[in-house]
Amino acid sequence: MTTNPEHSGSDLAEPYLGGLLASLGLNVHYHRARKDTLYYRDETGREVAVLDLVGGYGSTVLGHNHPALVAHARQLLDQGVPVHAQFSRHPYANDLAQRVNAILRREFGDVGEYSAIFANSGAEAVEIAVKHAELDRVAKVADLMAEIDGNIEKARAALAGGARVPADETLDRLTVARAAPPDAVLDAVTRANAERAAAAPVFLAPEGSFHGKLVGSVQLTHNAGFRTPFQSLAARCRFVPVREPDALAEAIDAERGTLFDVAVDGDAVRVVERDLPVICAFILEPVQGEAGIRPFDRETVERVQRVCAAVDLPIIVDEVQSGMGRTGTFFASSQVGLLGDYYTLAKSLGGGIAKAAMTLVRKSRYRDEFELVHSSTFAKDAFSTLIAARTVDLLEADGGAVYALAAERGARLLAMLNGLRDEFPTVVADVRGVGLMIGMEFRDQSGSAAGFIAEQARDGLLGYALSGYLLRAHALRVLPTASATDTLRLEPSVFITDGEIDRVEAGLRALLTALRDGDEAAIAPG
Amino acid sequence: MTTNPEHSGSDLAEPYLGGLLASLGLNVHYHRARKDTLYYRDETGREVAVLDLVGGYGSTVLGHNHPALVAHARQLLDQGVPVHAQFSRHPYANDLAQRVNAILRREFGDVGEYSAIFANSGAEAVEIAVKHAELDRVAKVADLMAEIDGNIEKARAALAGGARVPADETLDRLTVARAAPPDAVLDAVTRANAERAAAAPVFLAPEGSFHGKLVGSVQLTHNAGFRTPFQSLAARCRFVPVREPDALAEAIDAERGTLFDVAVDGDAVRVVERDLPVICAFILEPVQGEAGIRPFDRETVERVQRVCAAVDLPIIVDEVQSGMGRTGTFFASSQVGLLGDYYTLAKSLGGGIAKAAMTLVRKSRYRDEFELVHSSTFAKDAFSTLIAARTVDLLEADGGAVYALAAERGARLLAMLNGLRDEFPTVVADVRGVGLMIGMEFRDQSGSAAGFIAEQARDGLLGYALSGYLLRAHALRVLPTASATDTLRLEPSVFITDGEIDRVEAGLRALLTALRDGDEAAIAPG
Repeated sequence: MTTNPEHSGSDLAEPYLGGLLASLGLNVHYHRARKDTLYYRDETGREVAVLDLVGGYGSTVLGHNHPALVAHARQLLDQGVPVHAQFSRHPYANDLAQRVNAILRREFGDVGEYSAIFANSGAEAVEIAVKHAELDRVAKVADLMAEIDGNIEKARAALAGGARVPADETLDRLTVARAAPPDAVLDAVTRANAERAAAAPVFLAPEGSFHGKLVGSVQLTHNAGFRTPFQSLAARCRFVPVREPDALAEAIDAERGTLFDVAVDGDAVRVVERDLPVICAFILEPVQGEAGIRPFDRETVERVQRVCAAVDLPIIVDEVQSGMGRTGTFFASSQVGLLGDYYTLAKSLGGGIAKAAMTLVRKSRYRDEFELVHSSTFAKDAFSTLIAARTVDLLEADGGAVYALAAERGARLLAMLNGLRDEFPTVVADVRGVGLMIGMEFRDQSGSAAGFIAEQARDGLLGYALSGYLLRAHALRVLPTASATDTLRLEPSVFITDGEIDRVEAGLRALLTALRDGDEAAIAPG
Repeated sequence: MTTNPEHSGSDLAEPYLGGLLASLGLNVHYHRARKDTLYYRDETGREVAVLDLVGGYGSTVLGHNHPALVAHARQLLDQGVPVHAQFSRHPYANDLAQRVNAILRREFGDVGEYSAIFANSGAEAVEIAVKHAELDRVAKVADLMAEIDGNIEKARAALAGGARVPADETLDRLTVARAAPPDAVLDAVTRANAERAAAAPVFLAPEGSFHGKLVGSVQLTHNAGFRTPFQSLAARCRFVPVREPDALAEAIDAERGTLFDVAVDGDAVRVVERDLPVICAFILEPVQGEAGIRPFDRETVERVQRVCAAVDLPIIVDEVQSGMGRTGTFFASSQVGLLGDYYTLAKSLGGGIAKAAMTLVRKSRYRDEFELVHSSTFAKDAFSTLIAARTVDLLEADGGAVYALAAERGARLLAMLNGLRDEFPTVVADVRGVGLMIGMEFRDQSGSAAGFIAEQARDGLLGYALSGYLLRAHALRVLPTASATDTLRLEPSVFITDGEIDRVEAGLRALLTALRDGDEAAIAPG
């Protein structure tokens, strides 16, 4: 081996982050991983075992380097499966799509088939849903425009035959004079429609949404720090407080657009307005991850579905983090009856080993032509697809034992955390979650007697500072959620043991005690 | 194993594509790959060896499943390296960045350091460059706006002290009356600037560009079929015929924007105009891949660099397909002296095994804060990064023997193809390329006496039809370039043998003979 992992030159791979990690005491290099444990070497070369509750931000529901998946990966390498065989038959991709469809039917009932498009990351899966929804929207707008063109021709014929355009308030909205000649009215309709139809689409998403960080997907991520520098790059998303009963309906009303149409009615040619699909899709996570682990309840979901159905607005359910069993079912959305037109899957789909991602599109909305305009060199490859299929096998094995384990382990972890919340009410604001997707929210610490903690809290880095303490003092790996840094995420694998949960409890109790007592000495880095 | 690769249900993974592949005779399932050979089983179960010239659209410069890379992958699996260890130290990522920087210095000279940001696909690498360039542009606009705000305050003070605003034609461009009161002029400057500064950025790229298919990157891909359905989703790119001497300068001139500023000059407060960076970046492939394998020459490159430098416009060099040795150097751009502010690398960076990608950003333009706003769960992982590092090792071994081989094998292949072009001048329009990135362009076949060929040519599917013939009749895997389907791509690995090149020649000669003779029977599917 000629690679030298401890290169002496300046840091060229995210040097600023390196400095930040060092200042927080998070700058360890993990060289080995297994189940829920990551290992690093301390200065003396001793291997230190760290209990990992980050789990690849939700990617290791089966733990790190699951033996069956590692064995399968080795087998695929031994067999020499082709990673690169684009534009040929990929029966294993269809097989995975079929299996995920079968799970969807089991969890949601007979909801029809979903086509699958493959990707390399969760953000790419979201971009596929965005692109497909826009292809669909643009096609609908084109159909509508063609229909209106036909109606305009009919209107011209009627006008030639003596029909008239009654003056009414629609003409005012069209901004033509009520006394304008009929041809001028029709021309104004064409002109106004051309402009309206060309308007950029808008997306709707709940406040707090996180859907990735690529050019399109980052617009759907509410966090201003991640999004606003890039807001001129792509179409806008309107963030809606969807837990408030009327908010989504009001947002749709505020964003909806219309086209003008004409209708021949006896000897009158009336100008009317018709809905223009400006809103491309509503996207949501069933359990908001980076917003601080916030599940949506059934009531909110029912309202969302009703309001979206009323205007035929497609729903993209982002299961990148919540899916693949972590919450006790394959689809977290199925527990609250959230049926999507699109589903995005990634993270744990790759079993903690492969970069696998897929987007499901409901057949009734699916457009064949998407397959001709979208592709990716690295996606739909045998290696990641077959690792994903094996991951699904493991999730589904023994009648869904993994799902049951996720629910049971999650309940145990949650009960322990609720105990700590009750024990430290001045420090813990909330504990919440579903299955093995749990957040512990801390009260504001910017006034803490521990100066280090107060300072980090004021800089918005509280969760990272707490993570540094837990790593140094208790060999626990925890990180905050990305957009709510006062909330620590706990997303271990289904294999977390009682003993490990006890270790988490002991570490957190020490942390909470130090925070409650403002114990700077206990908590600040050496 | 419970997965069943020949699932009996309807096809859910790109069914439309499946039908298209079948109609073209391309619907084989490759189950094994090694070097430049892919294997499928025919109806009788016999294994058929296909010589692969597609090479993962440029991903297998070292062939399929290179033994050293497979061994390394197995070793990483055995060691249990952590795939998921986000927000910790990744010394191997820095090591890879250092090694690629060293290659950059060797090929380009002492050009300073480049920071590396990691991704999962070539399209993601492009999106990172786009996002970073936009972060940089927005920060520059903000700096400019702050400076102008300061100047406006100075101007107000000067006006309070009796200074005046001379009436000149800048006021006309500001659309205030020449006789407007001075405060109204300053307010108009503020208003006009707010609107101008908020304008969406524009990108520039050569006609024929291909830079990926995500929401942002697809806008930089010239092919109308791939791009226009999604054109309302993200910022616009202007495609420029950059091989024409004045085209790029004219495009920059047409797209450039200005802000208003004020300058106190004695007792006069003058309104002046200053350049606003509206153009975010110029992006190009050193050898345009999907446009039909079209290298840029040194003269064009020099002009591009001069014109961009004059307006401080960053250049993104997309080496996703051309890089990693295929053209005889690691960076194809280094052969024509094309120095970028950004480089995107993917495809062969993963050695044909891993989904590895990275974006290099020149330190002088690099903004630390990008590391806080961009990340990816799957990127910068030990597995793909270490496979990429081992790939670079193999490319660099023995004094760059792989680069020499790419040049030598490429020259031999090109000479053979040039011979065929001379032999079949009525069929072959052009043969061109660099190293192992070669295109063979066919003359229009829409009037061919072979009805099948004429029909496919009229549907824009000529290259796919020819690929189907070569696969069925000669066990050769070839595909057209994505945006120029009259051009077959030849991108084998450096290990292609003389005997294999002879097989390519025999297959192509049979194809060219049939095309020349309009021999329907020879060329149409069974």
